[in-house]
This record gives sequence, structure tokens and C-alpha cells, in this order.
Amino acid sequence: MPRPLPILLALLALANAPAPLRADEGMWTFDNLPLKQLKEKYGFVPDQAWLDHVRLSAIHFGGASGSFVSPDGLVLTNHHVGRGAVQRLSSKEKDYIKNGFLAATREEELKVPNLTLRTLMAMENVTERVRKAVKAGATEKDAAKQRLAELDAAKAEVEKKTGLSCDAVTLYQGGEYWIYGYKRHTDVRLVAAPEMGIAFFGGDPDNFTYPRHNLDVCLFRVYEDGKPYRPPHFLNWAEGGLKAGDLTFVVGHPGRTARLQTYAQMLYERDTAIPNGLKSSGRLRDVLMEYSARGAEQARQVTTLIFGVENGLKANKGALDGLKDVEAMKAIEKAEKELRARVAADPKLTASTGQSWAKIQGALDKQKAFAKEAMFVGSARSTTLGQALGLVRLADQVALPEAARLSEYRSEASLKSLRTRLSGPSTGMMGMAFNPDQETLMFTRGLEDALKELGPDHAFVKTVLGGKTPAEVAKSAVEGTKLGDAAVRKALVEGGKKAIAESADPMIVLARKIEPEALKLRKKQDDVAAVISEHASRIANARFAVYGKSRYPDATSSLRLSFGPVASYPANGTLIQPFTTFHGLFDRYEGWGGNAARAENGAWTLPQRWLDRKSKLNLDTPFNFVHAVDIIGGNSGSPVVNVRGELVGLIFDGNIESNAGRYFYDARVNRGVSVDARAILESLEKVMDAGHLVKEIRGK
Amino acid sequence: MPRPLPILLALLALANAPAPLRADEGMWTFDNLPLKQLKEKYGFVPDQAWLDHVRLSAIHFGGASGSFVSPDGLVLTNHHVGRGAVQRLSSKEKDYIKNGFLAATREEELKVPNLTLRTLMAMENVTERVRKAVKAGATEKDAAKQRLAELDAAKAEVEKKTGLSCDAVTLYQGGEYWIYGYKRHTDVRLVAAPEMGIAFFGGDPDNFTYPRHNLDVCLFRVYEDGKPYRPPHFLNWAEGGLKAGDLTFVVGHPGRTARLQTYAQMLYERDTAIPNGLKSSGRLRDVLMEYSARGAEQARQVTTLIFGVENGLKANKGALDGLKDVEAMKAIEKAEKELRARVAADPKLTASTGQSWAKIQGALDKQKAFAKEAMFVGSARSTTLGQALGLVRLADQVALPEAARLSEYRSEASLKSLRTRLSGPSTGMMGMAFNPDQETLMFTRGLEDALKELGPDHAFVKTVLGGKTPAEVAKSAVEGTKLGDAAVRKALVEGGKKAIAESADPMIVLARKIEPEALKLRKKQDDVAAVISEHASRIANARFAVYGKSRYPDATSSLRLSFGPVASYPANGTLIQPFTTFHGLFDRYEGWGGNAARAENGAWTLPQRWLDRKSKLNLDTPFNFVHAVDIIGGNSGSPVVNVRGELVGLIFDGNIESNAGRYFYDARVNRGVSVDARAILESLEKVMDAGHLVKEIRGK
Repeated sequence: MPRPLPILLALLALANAPAPLRADEGMWTFDNLPLKQLKEKYGFVPDQAWLDHVRLSAIHFGGASGSFVSPDGLVLTNHHVGRGAVQRLSSKEKDYIKNGFLAATREEELKVPNLTLRTLMAMENVTERVRKAVKAGATEKDAAKQRLAELDAAKAEVEKKTGLSCDAVTLYQGGEYWIYGYKRHTDVRLVAAPEMGIAFFGGDPDNFTYPRHNLDVCLFRVYEDGKPYRPPHFLNWAEGGLKAGDLTFVVGHPGRTARLQTYAQMLYERDTAIPNGLKSSGRLRDVLMEYSARGAEQARQVTTLIFGVENGLKANKGALDGLKDVEAMKAIEKAEKELRARVAADPKLTASTGQSWAKIQGALDKQKAFAKEAMFVGSARSTTLGQALGLVRLADQVALPEAARLSEYRSEASLKSLRTRLSGPSTGMMGMAFNPDQETLMFTRGLEDALKELGPDHAFVKTVLGGKTPAEVAKSAVEGTKLGDAAVRKALVEGGKKAIAESADPMIVLARKIEPEALKLRKKQDDVAAVISEHASRIANARFAVYGKSRYPDATSSLRLSFGPVASYPANGTLIQPFTTFHGLFDRYEGWGGNAARAENGAWTLPQRWLDRKSKLNLDTPFNFVHAVDIIGGNSGSPVVNVRGELVGLIFDGNIESNAGRYFYDARVNRGVSVDARAILESLEKVMDAGHLVKEIRGK
Repeated sequence: MPRPLPILLALLALANAPAPLRADEGMWTFDNLPLKQLKEKYGFVPDQAWLDHVRLSAIHFGGASGSFVSPDGLVLTNHHVGRGAVQRLSSKEKDYIKNGFLAATREEELKVPNLTLRTLMAMENVTERVRKAVKAGATEKDAAKQRLAELDAAKAEVEKKTGLSCDAVTLYQGGEYWIYGYKRHTDVRLVAAPEMGIAFFGGDPDNFTYPRHNLDVCLFRVYEDGKPYRPPHFLNWAEGGLKAGDLTFVVGHPGRTARLQTYAQMLYERDTAIPNGLKSSGRLRDVLMEYSARGAEQARQVTTLIFGVENGLKANKGALDGLKDVEAMKAIEKAEKELRARVAADPKLTASTGQSWAKIQGALDKQKAFAKEAMFVGSARSTTLGQALGLVRLADQVALPEAARLSEYRSEASLKSLRTRLSGPSTGMMGMAFNPDQETLMFTRGLEDALKELGPDHAFVKTVLGGKTPAEVAKSAVEGTKLGDAAVRKALVEGGKKAIAESADPMIVLARKIEPEALKLRKKQDDVAAVISEHASRIANARFAVYGKSRYPDATSSLRLSFGPVASYPANGTLIQPFTTFHGLFDRYEGWGGNAARAENGAWTLPQRWLDRKSKLNLDTPFNFVHAVDIIGGNSGSPVVNVRGELVGLIFDGNIESNAGRYFYDARVNRGVSVDARAILESLEKVMDAGHLVKEIRGK
């Protein structure tokens, strides 16, 4: 508020002055860590023993991450990573998601069906042999095949030699090839899970944000031969705990980044791809909400779906905000100019890559020209029409010689998977069973949108409407179709082109009419994708030739190390606190009116146990914190360790600003959000009745 | 974080769905409240007794607001409103700002020198008589004079009739004229003030933001004839307290809004005026920080100044963000089009106002052409050169016939004030005493900026540099000048044109050379301002003719009523909690590392007493809250009352989004920030040893 300058403000001094940037970009592979940078900035260089220790303590947990945290094979990950397992172990009577779970003894630990964890034991660089496998004079296409074959052979050899389960890992878009060998753990048992209400406190509104107050934690145990596994390495829990400015390391499996795209691709995402995606998702949300408003049962059917759409909108909106950052985009443009100058200065690189940026730009221009069509030509939000289109295309494609087919209709494995999907009980875009009311509404709105956006004279619109209104077309097709029955679809899959041609199912009839237009679009898309893929790969190779391993590779779900200090960041007009505490949990709970108010559909309500035992908790305990580490989806469940290699926290999210991390790392505001290890111990002991686990963890 | 859709999310339901807008725009005068709107939206219509009660309980406190809150004349306002008074009562030994103040008995209450509070007792509409005072055929200029004279006469009459202290109040830019009559209270005593550390917890980083945790509260008492004043009206404190969604009213004195500017003026502010201002202030901050970095003493000198600059930057950045809101700007443009259509449909309005928008646009175009010059032609950040320019212009202007002078050199009162200021001990732009080092740096950087931005061939740059470098010019002028001595300036003021012409002081020499260029610029600015003022007034009259009192007038520091519910808003990727609690205070305290860490120069540190007595506090007590009320600077200290006219809170700030309120009210995100009345009582009783005041307030 405007006010006279208070005298004592002098005491506070320079509060808004920009803090020196100490955040550190990069998701580094374990063979190539920026040790010099670490030494210069933090005076700390991890030795090989430190690196081996944290690597061998780390776990690949589904698409995400985890770690060993006791000598008896206790595994720590996020609740949202272990949630599927907890769900599979739950029943109507025993709702471990809602009520949490605790095994009071080892005997009570529950084996999770179909869960395999993996530890990265060996990494073998096979770049040279893969390169040499390419025969002189091979075309680009043949070269790719020869590389792939050699990589497969290398993988098989390493598997045989080590007995490990291996992955072929391509880094720097083909700058390097590795075989990563994993030890697999298949006997995994659930040990403890808190209630969903505390694991996901704040719900979807708070998701992707900070300040946070989530006990997003789940404990499992690995068994071998029916006994708790004794891992050669596990993380000790730090005695002291972090404070602001302390250096942290994150060991985990970041999924995918797209930071090495060309500037033109970034602009395309900013100006076309993401806005179109947001528009489409926003429209989907609106239609789902229209359906939801029809009644309680309808709301129940689509609530989870709406959440998913909302979350996607939030993440993509965050990414778009990042791409709108003028400074960040300038930096991306500048880096590209530098690389292009280096390419231009090298005749060999010029020959291979000199035209690549222009080629990609040209392809994007083409893509832009049909971007709107790509949004509307197709199933028009009808799950059933989508299935019908799949059936029609399958029959058409398999009737062609293999070389003439679209890529996914070539291999037997791929065809098998397509057939299974199309014959299954629920194969629609949204994975929902056939529901005529919902289907009619979605289809009607989808057709209305196509009509509005493409106009009545567009070939697709004319074909699909055939002179009727969207509502008429949708109503009669949904009423007449039998594709909601999986057996009907199975028969059409098996009957092939003849069965499709003879079918009078109105959705199949529509799909047959639409397919020529849809296929034309698909071929245009394939042409563009081929150009982009080829030249993105050339640019990647040029970049690797110029910069080598001074840069980190884009995330590829392989094990990485990120690092940076616990650090505030500017947002919401102020500076954001580095830590939250249990006080903050109850502040937000009370601030929203508590369980009685159930504000925002209960997003900030708490399980009763947390209210009953509040007085037992040391409310000053740090609960969550932010640190300037470069992470992304897939890092969920990653252990956060200090310079002594001890566990100090558990990554579970990034702040809203971190969504831009898909495209670039903005050290000023991109932050990882972690559960503080001290809060885990305090919760286990004071609320979750798990003193025995605290003793195990503490080694006492 | 990307994650599989959790099953139980269904429980949370639609958390991100847009909430129905219930916020309410308008700072309404007490004679013209939107009763229909209140009834329709809230089913509540305040009767005249309710309105009289809250109006007569409200206080005009300096440029801000306050209220009577006990039968014995206790006055509640913000700490930042009462801070000047607290400061004046403090001494080196008794630092009531740092340590707080409490009068344990009435005898200990401290009389504040030179503090007058006012209560609005009477409002008389004199529009008709003022209109009639304008003689037929008078020019615009004469009409203005006649209106002013009649308004003065009316004011004198009401003062005589009522014995009240009166203000002439112009509303709707001349649509209405009122005489407001106030009862004055001149014996005002300090009763209680908390420590600065809790009143301004979060310091400048948190200023203008929410969630907040400030006890921004100060208690005074009005005396009459040496005894506590018994006000005919005072606010009872609510027994229950608010919850989210409850309707609140704010009674206070909003200072100034500029919502009725033309769309072109808004664009000019967005694209030119504010960006230029931010650039200039940003540069000023950088130079001050450069100076500050020279040492501890230098830092001490300019710290408060830097805060002021930072706060201004923050507020203006917020306002600019508002003007960048596409939807808001569309609404402004639409409203203007509607008004213009109404004007176009009315021949009389067309005659007076039809050209006004184009005239303003034309003036803005001219202004834009010299906007850059206006940033750099002048004192070039030298306080002393600024004084020298003032001295030179004063001498030049008084030598001219009155009609030929710039406006501020015409009346004797104005000239006297100018002379006093120029002869005073510290008259520079930044109110600081002459300091050669600081002055040399500021001047050097100012000249460098002018050179860089205007180029070496600009007349001003050529004149001021005279072929030397900025550093040379600044160094020799600062070394040689005697204007740091007030006596020297006084002699020049008294010596007039002759003394100025003969002065060899290097700053005066420079100023004499610069003045022709500076004067040329000033005249261009005056020409533009005259056009804008004239046509803004015509548009305002047209608007009033078309819409009358269905709209509220721009804020003018006169008493207003705003209303709206306690309500969350979307920010920082989530929804913001309606209330904070004392838990949040300690969360933020601990989250920044507490008093030991003194993070960000101690912005989130707490007075020891608050730590010692933490266990006595009910930490669940609501501390601050946000409500959708339309307020702006000047509303500080306004009481927040419920539908029963009881005190439930105390306005002390707006959120960062509210800075756009200067231009428009965005119901979606603009929120007032208040101290909850329950937190005031809890603090007085549990921490501030003021149980006797709680008893007085509670009437027990």
C-alpha cells in the first residue's frame, strides 16, 4: 500500500535486490559431470565413491524414480509414484488410498503384483562400435538401420556378459550410444503410505505450485528369496537437515525435454502448437463440464477426466508462459546463432547441416498451413467414430504392400497391438466405456466446432455432415452404432476390408467417407515430420561435433544428476520462502475454513488423524522446500542428497514456473519442490505410528 | 508434476472450475449507494441508520482512514498510517517504532503533536447553485473561475451555518459539487502500537502482496476538554467473525483513481508513460545501488531511498501488468465506444464533446514525440543542478508580466512557497542534504544516460556537456558549486535576475545555459496538458449527462463505501487462501530460517516477544484476509464492517493485482487485504499485555 517511507525500513535493507544467481542448469549423465563448475561454485567435488554410492542407491521406479533408504532394502518414492501399487492392493473394505497403510511388522508388508524396480549397475559406451557399424556410402536410411542393428547386438552382448537387464540409451540425439545395465527387483512390498489427503494436500489447485505442504511419500521394501534385500548401497538419512543456500543433488530419471529444438520450432510451439492445444483442451473441458452439469452421476463419470484436462492445461499454460519470456527466447536465439556460425565455419558441417534450419523452417511453414485442419479433421470428439476410423484404416492399410503402408501398419508387433486395442472393451481416446448420452454430446460439439472453424465448404465438413446439422448427424450415428460392443469391433478387425466395406454401422459408414480426407492430412503430416526428424538429427550431430560433452543431453528417462542450492525465487509480487513447515499446513487448512467448510471441494481438507495428532507434531519442522535444481517429470521420487551423500529430501514436483523447463532452464525462477526428510521422520513417528520405521531408518 | 490420474481425485471435484464472480466494483459516495445491486446480490439493504452509523464512526486520518471503536473514543487505524505519529513520540531512548508502545493506563496515553482527525458530519449538494453561478455566454475559462468562486462562497456559508470544517468536493469531474462538513478532533493520543517487526512482517518484499501476516494496527484515543471523547457513533467489534463468502463493507477515503481516462490515454500510459517511468526508476535504483555498494555508510544513506524506489517500481509494474490485460482493455475500449455512440446521438453533446477524443489523441501523439526528451532534459539526476535550474527559472519568470509566466509563478502564495523551498536546507528531488560523492555519481550517470539516449547532437546534450565527458562535467560542477549551502541559495533567491546573471557558480552557469532548452520543453508539455485537461473535462461532463449517478465517481479522497465478499482469487498457479492465520506467520518465519538467518535482511524476522509468547496464542486465529472490495491508497486504516455494521477487520493493503485498480477494477483478481479483528484482540490480550483495551473494546 502506498505509504510514507517508514524510518525503520533502513533495518531491512535491499530486500528486493536481485539475489546472485547460483542455480545450476543441467541433467547430467554420471559419466560426464560438470566437476569444474561444481568445484568453482561450491568448492565441492564428488569423488567416484560418492558418485557410485548415490547411483547405486537410486532406483528406476516405473517411469519415475526412487531410492534405497535402509540396509534392509526400504525404498522411498512419492505417493503419486507408488499410488498405482497402493491402489492395486486396496479393496472396497481396505481403502489404503484414502486411509493410508502401515505394516506394523515385516510380515504385514504387502507384496505388489507386477512391480519391477531397477538399479543402474553398469554403463558401457558403445558409440565407437555403433559408428563403425555404418558401412561406407550407406544412405541415411540404411545407416540408421545399421546403427540400430549394432546397438541391439551390443545390448545382447552386455546382457549376456553381465546378466543384467539392459537398455540401449541414445544421448545427444545420436552423439553417443550407451548400454545401461540394470539389476531388477521383482519382489516389492508396500510398507507405508500416508492418506491421500496429506500426500496430495491442496489437490489439483496446488499441483505444479509452491508453497506446498504435501507428504507425497510412499515406502516399499525390496525382497530377495523371501527375505528383505540387503542393498550394497543405500542412502543414510541426514542428521542435521538443510538450510537455505545449502547445495543439493537430485538423482533420478527425468523423462523428456525438448531444449535442443531449433528457435523456429520453439516459435512454432509458442505461436501455434501450444495455443491450438490449449484451445482444444479448453474446449474439451467446457464440453465435459457441460455434461457434468447434467447431474450427479454424470459429474461422477467425468470428474477425473476433467482433472486430467485441467492439469494438462495448467502444465501447458506454464510452458507457454515460459516461451513468452522475451529474455529466455533471446538466449535461445543467440545460442542457435552461435551454433550456426560454427557450422558455417566448418565446410564438412556446412555440407551436412548448413541447410537444416531452413529445411525445418520450411516444414513448419507447411505444418502451420494445415494446423487448423489437424485440429478438426478426424473423430470430432466421438470415441466411437475414432474407433471406426481405426478399423477402416487398419483394413485399408493391411491390404497394401508393406512399403506403401503408414509406419505403424508395417511390423507384425505393431499390427498386433493395434488389433488388440481396437478389439478391446474400451479403446476410445478417453479410455471410457461407451456411453450414448456422453457420446452424443461430445460428438455434437465436436462437429459444431469443425463446422464453425473449418467452414461449411471444407471437404471434411461437407462429407461428415452430408447436409445435416451436427446434432442430427451425432444423434443418428450414436443411436445406430453397435461399436460400443467390443465383439462387434473384434468381428470387424477379423473380417478385414470386406467386412468393413459391407458394414452398415453408421459410424463405419461415416468413417469410410471420412478416411480419404483424414489420410490426406496424415500424409501431409508425415512429410513434414520426416523433414523435421532428419534435420533435427543433423543439427544434433553438428552440435555434438562442435560442443561435445561440454553440454548435457536432453532428458531421455536415463539416470541423471542435477544439483543446485535451496533457494527462494521471485513470484506473486514477493520472494517465496525456501521452506514451508507444518505450521503452513495448518495455516492453509484453517485459511480455507477447514474440514467443515470443504472449500473448493475439499482440496485443503485433512484426514482426521492429522487434526487429532497436531499437538504431538513439532510444527516448526520443515515440511517442503524449493531448490534450484534442473528436473522434470520422471524425476518424481528422486532422492535429494547433500554433499555427504545423505538423504535430505524427496523431489515430488516443480513450481508453476518449472513447466517452461521443457524448453529451457530459467535459473531465476525454475525450482524443484521436495518433501523435507525431517518431515517424513516426524510424520512417521508422531502421526503414522511408524516409530519402528524411524528406528530402522535411524539405524537404532 | 505429471502423474497418473489418481482414483480418489474424484473426491475433490472441479477444483479449478471458475468460481462465479460475486465481487463488486465501485467506491460509492454515501448519498448514492447501489442499493438495488446490494439487494439483488446479497439480499441486504443497509438502512439510513446503518449508513449514518458507519459514516459517523469513520475517520479521516491524514491522507488515510480510521474509525472509532469504543465508547471512550478509541481510534483504530493502520500502523503505517499512525507511524509518523509514533515516530514523533519516539526518542533514541524510547524507540516505539522498533519496540512498540502501550499505555497501561489512560494517564500514560501520549498526546500526538499536530495531528487532526476528522469525521464527516454533513454533506450538502451545491451543484445547482454552482451551475447557476456561471453567467450566460461566459468563456470556458471565465466559467471555471465563476464556478470556483461560487464553490468558495458555498463552503464559507456552510462553515458558518454548521460550525464544521468544510471541504469543497468535486465529483464526476464536475458533474457534481458538494460541501462536506467535518468535525475536527485535535487532541489525539497514542494508546498502543505493536512492534514494526510484526506490523510490517515481510517488509518490502511482501508489501502489496498476499498471503500476508501483518498486525498493521495502531490505536489512538480522541480527547475533548482533557477527557476521553464519547463519540455519538463507534463500531462494535463483531462477536463471531467472518468466513469465506461473507459480505464486507469498507468505509474510507480512497485517494485517486484514473478510471475515466480515454482509451487512448490508457494506451499511452501502457506503452509510453509507465514503461518510461519504470525505465527511469530502474536506472535510479541501479545508480543508488552502485553508490550503496561503496560501503556501509553509503548503504545507510540510500537504503530508505532504494526502498521507496523499489516500492514505486513494484506498484507501477503491477499497474502496467493490469494495462496489459487484453480482456480488461477490451472492456475499456467497449465502454468508450458506447459513450461515444451516445454522444454522437445527441447534437448538444456532439457539439461540446464530439471532437474531444480526437483532440486528446492528437495531444498524446505530440506528447509521445517528446516523451524521451522529457526523461532526460533537465537536472540529469543532479539535486544541485535541479536547484540551480529552479533558481534561474524563478529569476527569469518573476521578471516577466504575470500573464506571460508559467502557472506556478503567478500567485504570491505559490511564489512564496517556491522561494522557501529553494532557500531551505534540503530542497533536492530526493530530499537529501548535499553530498559531493553521491552527487557526482548521480550527475555523471544522469549525463551519461542523456548522452546515450538523446545522442551527442541533441541541443541539451551539446549544451550541458560543452565538449567534455559526463564525468568531467559532473566532477568540476560538483566540486565548484556552493549551492549545497542554503545561505548561498537564499542570497540568489533574493538577488533575483541580476544575482543569477552575475553568478559564477558552475551549477548556475550550467543552468543558465540549459534553461532555454528546458523552457522550450516545458511549454510543449503545457500545451499538451491544456488540451487534455479541457477535453477530459468535456468528456466527463458528457459521461455524467449520459449516465448520471448510475456510475460511481473516480476516487478523490472523499468518504466512500465499497463492498464485496471474503473471496479467494487465482494466482501463482493455484487459488489463494481467503484467510491466513498465526500459523502462517510462524510458517513464514521458520520457512525463511527465523531470526538467526535474518534472510533478506531480516524481512521475515520477529520481535522476541512474539516468539516468547507464541505458545499463548491460539495459532488457528485468522490473521489477515482478502476480500473482493474496490479500494485504493487512502483506504489504509479503513474499518471493515459486516452487515450488522460491526467491526470485523481493518484494511491495510491490496494484493499485487490490485495495482491495476488505478485504471480499472478486475473483479476476478483485485482484492483488498485486511487484518482480521479477531487477530487484533488475540494479539492485544496474549502478546501486547493490553487486556484492559480488550475489555474496553468488548464493553466488559
